[in-house]
Amino acid sequence: MLTSFYYQKGKPLESGLTRPRMFEILQQKEGLLWVDFDNPDEFESDALVEIFNFHDLAVEDCVSDVSSPKADDYEEYLFLVMHALSLAEEGKLKTVELDIFLGKNYVVTFHKEPVKSIQQVRDIVKRSETMMNQGSDLLVHNILDHLVDNYLPVLDYYDSQIDNLEEHLVNDPPKDYLSTLMQLKRDIFNLRRTVSPQRDTIYFLTRNPTPFIKPKNVAYFRDIYDHLFRIYGMAEGYHENLTSILQVYFSFQSHKLNDIMKRMTILATLPMPSVIIASIYGMNFRHMPELNHPYGYLGSLGLMALISVGMLVWMKFKKWI
Amino acid sequence: MLTSFYYQKGKPLESGLTRPRMFEILQQKEGLLWVDFDNPDEFESDALVEIFNFHDLAVEDCVSDVSSPKADDYEEYLFLVMHALSLAEEGKLKTVELDIFLGKNYVVTFHKEPVKSIQQVRDIVKRSETMMNQGSDLLVHNILDHLVDNYLPVLDYYDSQIDNLEEHLVNDPPKDYLSTLMQLKRDIFNLRRTVSPQRDTIYFLTRNPTPFIKPKNVAYFRDIYDHLFRIYGMAEGYHENLTSILQVYFSFQSHKLNDIMKRMTILATLPMPSVIIASIYGMNFRHMPELNHPYGYLGSLGLMALISVGMLVWMKFKKWI
Amino acid sequence: MLTSFYYQKGKPLESGLTRPRMFEILQQKEGLLWVDFDNPDEFESDALVEIFNFHDLAVEDCVSDVSSPKADDYEEYLFLVMHALSLAEEGKLKTVELDIFLGKNYVVTFHKEPVKSIQQVRDIVKRSETMMNQGSDLLVHNILDHLVDNYLPVLDYYDSQIDNLEEHLVNDPPKDYLSTLMQLKRDIFNLRRTVSPQRDTIYFLTRNPTPFIKPKNVAYFRDIYDHLFRIYGMAEGYHENLTSILQVYFSFQSHKLNDIMKRMTILATLPMPSVIIASIYGMNFRHMPELNHPYGYLGSLGLMALISVGMLVWMKFKKWI
Amino acid sequence: MLTSFYYQKGKPLESGLTRPRMFEILQQKEGLLWVDFDNPDEFESDALVEIFNFHDLAVEDCVSDVSSPKADDYEEYLFLVMHALSLAEEGKLKTVELDIFLGKNYVVTFHKEPVKSIQQVRDIVKRSETMMNQGSDLLVHNILDHLVDNYLPVLDYYDSQIDNLEEHLVNDPPKDYLSTLMQLKRDIFNLRRTVSPQRDTIYFLTRNPTPFIKPKNVAYFRDIYDHLFRIYGMAEGYHENLTSILQVYFSFQSHKLNDIMKRMTILATLPMPSVIIASIYGMNFRHMPELNHPYGYLGSLGLMALISVGMLVWMKFKKWI
Amino acid sequence: MLTSFYYQKGKPLESGLTRPRMFEILQQKEGLLWVDFDNPDEFESDALVEIFNFHDLAVEDCVSDVSSPKADDYEEYLFLVMHALSLAEEGKLKTVELDIFLGKNYVVTFHKEPVKSIQQVRDIVKRSETMMNQGSDLLVHNILDHLVDNYLPVLDYYDSQIDNLEEHLVNDPPKDYLSTLMQLKRDIFNLRRTVSPQRDTIYFLTRNPTPFIKPKNVAYFRDIYDHLFRIYGMAEGYHENLTSILQVYFSFQSHKLNDIMKRMTILATLPMPSVIIASIYGMNFRHMPELNHPYGYLGSLGLMALISVGMLVWMKFKKWI
Repeated sequence: MLTSFYYQKGKPLESGLTRPRMFEILQQKEGLLWVDFDNPDEFESDALVEIFNFHDLAVEDCVSDVSSPKADDYEEYLFLVMHALSLAEEGKLKTVELDIFLGKNYVVTFHKEPVKSIQQVRDIVKRSETMMNQGSDLLVHNILDHLVDNYLPVLDYYDSQIDNLEEHLVNDPPKDYLSTLMQLKRDIFNLRRTVSPQRDTIYFLTRNPTPFIKPKNVAYFRDIYDHLFRIYGMAEGYHENLTSILQVYFSFQSHKLNDIMKRMTILATLPMPSVIIASIYGMNFRHMPELNHPYGYLGSLGLMALISVGMLVWMKFKKWI
Repeated sequence: MLTSFYYQKGKPLESGLTRPRMFEILQQKEGLLWVDFDNPDEFESDALVEIFNFHDLAVEDCVSDVSSPKADDYEEYLFLVMHALSLAEEGKLKTVELDIFLGKNYVVTFHKEPVKSIQQVRDIVKRSETMMNQGSDLLVHNILDHLVDNYLPVLDYYDSQIDNLEEHLVNDPPKDYLSTLMQLKRDIFNLRRTVSPQRDTIYFLTRNPTPFIKPKNVAYFRDIYDHLFRIYGMAEGYHENLTSILQVYFSFQSHKLNDIMKRMTILATLPMPSVIIASIYGMNFRHMPELNHPYGYLGSLGLMALISVGMLVWMKFKKWI
Repeated sequence: MLTSFYYQKGKPLESGLTRPRMFEILQQKEGLLWVDFDNPDEFESDALVEIFNFHDLAVEDCVSDVSSPKADDYEEYLFLVMHALSLAEEGKLKTVELDIFLGKNYVVTFHKEPVKSIQQVRDIVKRSETMMNQGSDLLVHNILDHLVDNYLPVLDYYDSQIDNLEEHLVNDPPKDYLSTLMQLKRDIFNLRRTVSPQRDTIYFLTRNPTPFIKPKNVAYFRDIYDHLFRIYGMAEGYHENLTSILQVYFSFQSHKLNDIMKRMTILATLPMPSVIIASIYGMNFRHMPELNHPYGYLGSLGLMALISVGMLVWMKFKKWI
Repeated sequence: MLTSFYYQKGKPLESGLTRPRMFEILQQKEGLLWVDFDNPDEFESDALVEIFNFHDLAVEDCVSDVSSPKADDYEEYLFLVMHALSLAEEGKLKTVELDIFLGKNYVVTFHKEPVKSIQQVRDIVKRSETMMNQGSDLLVHNILDHLVDNYLPVLDYYDSQIDNLEEHLVNDPPKDYLSTLMQLKRDIFNLRRTVSPQRDTIYFLTRNPTPFIKPKNVAYFRDIYDHLFRIYGMAEGYHENLTSILQVYFSFQSHKLNDIMKRMTILATLPMPSVIIASIYGMNFRHMPELNHPYGYLGSLGLMALISVGMLVWMKFKKWI
Repeated sequence: MLTSFYYQKGKPLESGLTRPRMFEILQQKEGLLWVDFDNPDEFESDALVEIFNFHDLAVEDCVSDVSSPKADDYEEYLFLVMHALSLAEEGKLKTVELDIFLGKNYVVTFHKEPVKSIQQVRDIVKRSETMMNQGSDLLVHNILDHLVDNYLPVLDYYDSQIDNLEEHLVNDPPKDYLSTLMQLKRDIFNLRRTVSPQRDTIYFLTRNPTPFIKPKNVAYFRDIYDHLFRIYGMAEGYHENLTSILQVYFSFQSHKLNDIMKRMTILATLPMPSVIIASIYGMNFRHMPELNHPYGYLGSLGLMALISVGMLVWMKFKKWI
């Protein structure tokens, strides 16, 4: 599906433009044209070449499956690859590639699945002319700004997941605790791997002047860089937290099991003296004076009890139990 | 709350300036104006735009929640984001963002919670005119100098915490030893993450000349860099120490438990020969000559004692106990 | 074996050229000559020196066993060393060195074992003249593009292997699970070590202009760099996954064994009370009233059962079993 | 305490100069003046400002507690902070800060505790005029050269400590083995942290020409850099060795304890068959033919012995013992 | 011992030159002089200063014990420190420092122990004039080329050692397995530490033009860099392999021991029911009907056997054994 907007100062906003109209606009080099390709079919994708005449490599990056975030300068336009983040069911990280062509008087966005930030900016454009009036670079800045802001719910989700894990750590971790933790660790690894090249790409844009971003607007892109830098820092912090939870978890688990083992061994050790005493008085020697003593039986039972209690007291004293 | 000072050579220090007066001063470009925004309400915050006309991105950085330390050059002024550190209750690390606008003849500081170094410099300004007489760059240097000096109590606290942990390590570590250690490790991770971008920001200022810092004063900022560099090094050392304590702790814990297990096993092994002997003489064979021997009973008891002592001696000799 | 093609605009494609014809073509400096050395014998290898007059160091790199990926600029031509990847039996990674000489109007490829991408481009050249018509740099780009695309089946294989491992993790890991994992980890280490210098080599080509790649075609090589960058990222992700599987595996193994140990200890602990009771009533004291009681025997058996069941209940309650 | 020397070509060496004489020399800008501040009192420290007029930041670095190694260029002189290393009692690493001001015709050294290399160069200066005749840069080189040479005994000490640890590893590691190792590891961490900024500081001096080091003398400072580079490499090697010793230690410890556990379990298993046999013949069944057999008793003893020996042989065969 | 060669075009090779002859040659600045100092005595070492007038720092690097690999440019000549590698007894890595002075028309090599590559080049020089005819830079290249080629047997030795370790891993690792592995790991650490500065030194030479290497010959030094780069990569691979072997080894060891423990516990658990049964029928109750039953004895034995077999079957079913 194609959505298109054209704004020229003093004139009303056009939308839903035809191909010939787009072509005409590109010739005039005035106003600002924004065309969004939202999961386009093959015929619609052709417009990238036929109307905009984009380089085949950039077009291939759009229609092929996955590309890394980057900024390529093709003289006539700047080609940006960014990744939108969202949470699929069960908290799996979902990445959608967003390709942006930034020309002097046009912006082309291309994505195969709905991207929330595009939807948001589209709504603003419909409501107010200001956004289309600021030039192509600030339109792109707005899209990127929303894109990066939409990372925050993802980060919040992970944050709460980690808090969850931390809470369960002390009490009774469920059976799949470790796999949950490991899955989270891998998700955060992927998050960092998604954020870091985007951060570097935007950094590159702020340091290397391109004709497509006006010098006075570079600060806006630097602002996006700051956001990405902070998000990466947060992701790093999550990673550190998870690593530390993992270490405590392993230590707790081994403590707990060792504890049980210790108690078991104590239970196996305690009856031993009683067994010996009973065995001794079960011997068949002819001359065993105790056997004939009227209190022999009670005495032997008492001895067993005494030794068992004595052992318990000693273990307590030695802090074994 | 707004606090403002204005000093012009030869004239007395003005304070508590009105908005029109501030506006007037900014036009004159003489003397030195310092306005401190201490947890300002919305109306007060407006002054950032209305009077100083600061860039909306910088203003957004001020009023929004968290920004990373950085130095942005907006032609008319330099925008610095720094972080003050203090200890909240229970030794949790607390970070307060301090935003600084450094212009030719004015300094604007902005923070949402009280910052100790601002309070300190404010007190000095009230007591003596010297500080306001040295120019805007040295005023900022003074604020930063106090800011960084206020890191030291935090570091000292962590230092003593680590010493504490180390002391408890050998004797009897309390039950929450590991969680305390892990919490400390994470606090120090956060400390390093707070210090390192500030260090880099100040480094950047000392290496890239800006019109807002006079060349002869760059050395003062280099001095702050040196402080931050050393603080970061100290934090790194703490991290190393904690890692090493952790390893020793794990090793000690496993040693201790294994020790108990060993003793338990010994206790379970020692009675075995006695049990066998007693069982043998409990057998009902008709022809067991020892049973009729007058010293059979005593002899069997003696044998049990002998073997048990022999085993103890052997274990001692083999260094098992 | 030598395969050669020569194309000059407007003339039909020549193939299977003789040495004198090659020599003649090199003098004319027109059209495009491609000679592929596929596991050449010594006589054929001589052509590198005798006809093309390549530097002895480059020739040595070709005929010697292994060289690292690199790009050397020898004024008259660019010498590229790349590595083709494929899977040998049992999923072992197989690397074949592909040496490429890129001149103004000729391309020489040299390899000791069949390289799939060479075969693919050779087939295209035979089918259509377009490829030979685009210049030497785009011919090389095409070879590299196929080379890098042929990495993907290798990556897919590893991906499925890791999925396999992950699946077996929860159920019943076979005996050689760990060695398989370790072998995979090492293969992926080798993969990364193969990809990373190639990525850097191509990056070097895109950043440093050479007369052998036309400026407008640099974007094509940047595209190959993007591919290699993404492949390296994928390999890094595999490495991270394997590390995480390894940690979970170790934790699962130790859990399982500890579990068995715990059950065993319980089994050794449970009979103890019964043994004591039986031993007590096996004592030979003259005065043991229970022995004469008509329900003494049944009572003692009942007591044994009671205590055993009680212990089981208690252990269940304490979550030991 | 202040020690001062002044040398002018053709004139005898002056020492113990008064403040007015120093001031006079500084005006003349001829010859070479060396003033050493050895743990100066407050009055003596004042000379830094009053006579030499050094920048207050540099003076603060001198009198304050600790500064990181660095080289600051203050137009009129170069300010160097270096650290001398020595061993305090019990092998603790001791660091003393040495501050050096290198001017065109003077050298000022400042330290709060005795520094061996200063003492050594002072002795040479007293014995021969050559050193003071070579210019201020070579005097500083000589001080630094001795400073770095004095690192070697420290390294040798650590080397022998590591050898010690390695020797004890195989035999019988004493109880504080692990803490010694950990302490050593931390000392070497500190050593590396002390050496690395000094190495970088000297590297900086050799790469960035300063007017205070004559170009032909840069090689001498490069030589000090080489020494520091090698020392850092050695410290890295020590770190690696300790890490490897630690791993072997943990493995040995667990081996040893597991060994004891294994033997204990064997000791607990071996008597079991004998206990069963004896218990069986202790049963009170009326019809037990063996009980009346004249060799029943001996036979049962023999059976016990046979089974025990058989078990031992089997365990030996299975390599369990 | 000094070995010297002098070659001038068209004249026969001179060897064993006297000091005055060397001095004379150095004045003429024609032809190529090579002097090799093989473990020279003090008198011979003097020639470095007296004849060649080398800088005292370079001479000190030669005669002192150890220097790091580096390339120092002393205007009149280039001073190179390289390290030859060989295997001492028991596979210990042995490093011999080789110092090279590369002048316009002379090469001086200095080493305290025999260096194989020097011997090899010396033999070639004696056999053919070509080598001395190519200029001083290519003579040095030849020495370095042989030096680096002589690394390969060392690498091969480590490779076979690692294969050895891997083979023993599965079967029966000998008692010193771990120490061998750790020693190997440390040797390879040292190998990497030796190779990496040499690689960087040669890289530096190829990137920074020096007047002592003709531009057209830089490619030869780049070739040596490629070799060192590959060797370093191999050493990195060895390190990775050893780390992975170590992890598998620890896992195997713990598996094996746990296995034994498990079997032992089973052996201790199995007899328990028999002991209980026998103890029960050893009780002295008056009313125990089974005792008078004619098959009581056999029945009890049968019960013991039945329970033991049942337990075994159950354990097999539960996969405990």
